[in-house]
Amino acid sequence: MSEEFLKVARAAREAAAELAPLPRAPKDRALRTIADALVAHAAEIVQANAEDVERARAQGTSESMIDRLRLDEARIGAIAEAVRQVADLPDPVGEVVRGSTLPNGLELRQLRVPLGVIGIIYEGRPNVTVDAAALCLKSGNAVLLRGSSSAYSSNTALVKVMQGALRGTEVPADAVQLVPGLTRDSVKELMRARGLVDVLIPRGGASLINSVVEESTVPVIETGVGNCHVYVDAEADVDLAVQILLNAKAQRPSVCNAAETFLVHAGVADAFVPRALAALREAGVTVHGDERIAGYGAEVVPVTDDDFFTEYLSLDIAAAVVGSLEEAVAHIRRYGSGHTDAIVTRSQQAARRFVALVDSAAVAVNASTRFTDGGEFGFGAEIGISTQKLHARGPMGLPELTSTKWIYTGEGHLRTSEGTVVCG
Amino acid sequence: MSEEFLKVARAAREAAAELAPLPRAPKDRALRTIADALVAHAAEIVQANAEDVERARAQGTSESMIDRLRLDEARIGAIAEAVRQVADLPDPVGEVVRGSTLPNGLELRQLRVPLGVIGIIYEGRPNVTVDAAALCLKSGNAVLLRGSSSAYSSNTALVKVMQGALRGTEVPADAVQLVPGLTRDSVKELMRARGLVDVLIPRGGASLINSVVEESTVPVIETGVGNCHVYVDAEADVDLAVQILLNAKAQRPSVCNAAETFLVHAGVADAFVPRALAALREAGVTVHGDERIAGYGAEVVPVTDDDFFTEYLSLDIAAAVVGSLEEAVAHIRRYGSGHTDAIVTRSQQAARRFVALVDSAAVAVNASTRFTDGGEFGFGAEIGISTQKLHARGPMGLPELTSTKWIYTGEGHLRTSEGTVVCG
Repeated sequence: MSEEFLKVARAAREAAAELAPLPRAPKDRALRTIADALVAHAAEIVQANAEDVERARAQGTSESMIDRLRLDEARIGAIAEAVRQVADLPDPVGEVVRGSTLPNGLELRQLRVPLGVIGIIYEGRPNVTVDAAALCLKSGNAVLLRGSSSAYSSNTALVKVMQGALRGTEVPADAVQLVPGLTRDSVKELMRARGLVDVLIPRGGASLINSVVEESTVPVIETGVGNCHVYVDAEADVDLAVQILLNAKAQRPSVCNAAETFLVHAGVADAFVPRALAALREAGVTVHGDERIAGYGAEVVPVTDDDFFTEYLSLDIAAAVVGSLEEAVAHIRRYGSGHTDAIVTRSQQAARRFVALVDSAAVAVNASTRFTDGGEFGFGAEIGISTQKLHARGPMGLPELTSTKWIYTGEGHLRTSEGTVVCG
Repeated sequence: MSEEFLKVARAAREAAAELAPLPRAPKDRALRTIADALVAHAAEIVQANAEDVERARAQGTSESMIDRLRLDEARIGAIAEAVRQVADLPDPVGEVVRGSTLPNGLELRQLRVPLGVIGIIYEGRPNVTVDAAALCLKSGNAVLLRGSSSAYSSNTALVKVMQGALRGTEVPADAVQLVPGLTRDSVKELMRARGLVDVLIPRGGASLINSVVEESTVPVIETGVGNCHVYVDAEADVDLAVQILLNAKAQRPSVCNAAETFLVHAGVADAFVPRALAALREAGVTVHGDERIAGYGAEVVPVTDDDFFTEYLSLDIAAAVVGSLEEAVAHIRRYGSGHTDAIVTRSQQAARRFVALVDSAAVAVNASTRFTDGGEFGFGAEIGISTQKLHARGPMGLPELTSTKWIYTGEGHLRTSEGTVVCG
């Protein structure tokens, strides 16, 4: 590991130990100081961002990508406002999760505590730099940020402003760190920093997440790959089903909770598929369908096995007719990513069965898949959507950035082979 | 991956899908059937066990190890009784962890669901084979068991009896599987079985656990390495401190919640150390102490840095005098394993500070470290003690063998840029 990386990671680790026992008030003050500093230093940040934009343009980056990268005063104001909103959220640290007085009189409590040092690897817009830092600080964690190299100047400026703001507060400035270096080596260092980093959260496409999962010795929380399904049951209200499918696919196709496949029960295909194809066509969606779907519309493109595995994130959708709810569930188990899968049905029994059999982070009944979201669930903020089963599953808010600690208090409690003895 | 391993892992995966939606009653019936079958087939099991014992003896295994390996009718009866106790425990699956009706009318629930397929790698006595299987089945999970090669005949017989018993029940027999093969290759296969196995729980010594953590692409829950400390504060009741230290070290030295180091505040060393050394000597404990500790007794062996890192699991203890509570905390952070650390003090302030600063799965105040235990905490049963921060920390009972699933139910809920619209 490079000296440069070790220095940063060790500084974060020490800062984490200082930050962990802080109560809510100093953390909130620090977040509000960061928000003010971002606004006060907007001009510097915009200037640093201009370097990234210029470099991206010289490399022939598309205008839509450049727009995602660009920061202006209004966007910086919105980022600062999001930090203030995090300050307003309840502090998960110190929450008593469980507790009791044991039969022997020991007082037992399980408390939420920070995880320690969180590494975030992300590809997104530079606002993630600030959003992620704010959520980590609020939950008492230090953060190592490894953003996209295309946003390196912006991220450097943002972290500099945040660290500067923290210097006047009780939160140590070293609690927010940019991982040095632009190369893939710095990602590798993060992945091998077991003992220095407590958890890694990769935020990005499937290939980034898979490589982190494969190579990391630091525990990983997988986020964000969403191959979501809408299953239209034999007992579906066809009107409802068309609108839910359209919303799930086309309302915002680039996000992980958008639908990527629809499955229709054969018993309702005649009524549903022609109307669905018309609605999707009107929304500009290309349907990749099996033979039975293709029988309902000349515009249907033949679907491949790969299509069923694909998270399009575009105006494309795969489609198939299934013979039963169980066949739909088997399809979802085989091809899905365990993010969100929806059923449209009037049947209580079918809904109950689908909910029981589908093994995903979220199951929607007569609702669009688009609602799987920390904001919609009322979390106030979200660090990502976990599609794994350990630790956190589904939208992750502040409590998901914590661990727990057991505390037991006695008055001289000893354990003997006959049971507890209280001495003294 | 070998065909043999894939066959077993895939069968477990299919069984897990069948087992997951089962309610409590059929799972409890299956566990009681297993308990009855173990008793009914005790003779076969003892016979298989005799092969392991004979092999161990031929290899010159110590009598104490052979005793740990040995099964007789009484021990099999106790194993069966433990299975019945697991049947009596509440089922964690289906518990509503959180839930609300969102402002838009969506009904949101977070339910406990099984993890899926759990791999257990263990070195212990053959009773772990049955204990672990019972806990996994009760929590709706299939289990892949990879026990010690020294107990292979016993484990094979136990799994055969459990599978035979399950054949007459609603729980699929494939939900309990022994990983084929005796070599380290079968451990490797388990560690690379991402997608087939949802979590690996290594139970054993530090070297087993470290190698699994380093090499596994399947998420791991680390268990059981306990380098536990007793810190005797300046404000300690010396009587209490001596008894707590003695209990923590000597009541059962071979277990992970036994103390391995004591730290004494300089202000109480004169009063505490001579009495502690006398009590430890009487219990047959060798003290590895720093110079100040050695000043109180000729029998003190000089301590090394390695000693402070060591989980002795024997009648040995490392010891040092510290200048402050903060120095004790720094020592524990540096050398500890994050299992259990205790403070003995009359000072409310010192207790509060120690609890806040020590970053371990459990912190004990005026109580022996020996209470960190699923049974003592009232969990009814324990699969291990996690010393990691993700997913589960401290004693793990049935709820720690589950994940969660979000379910939301609407009546045509769509998400738009202006907020929720309910169609239909």
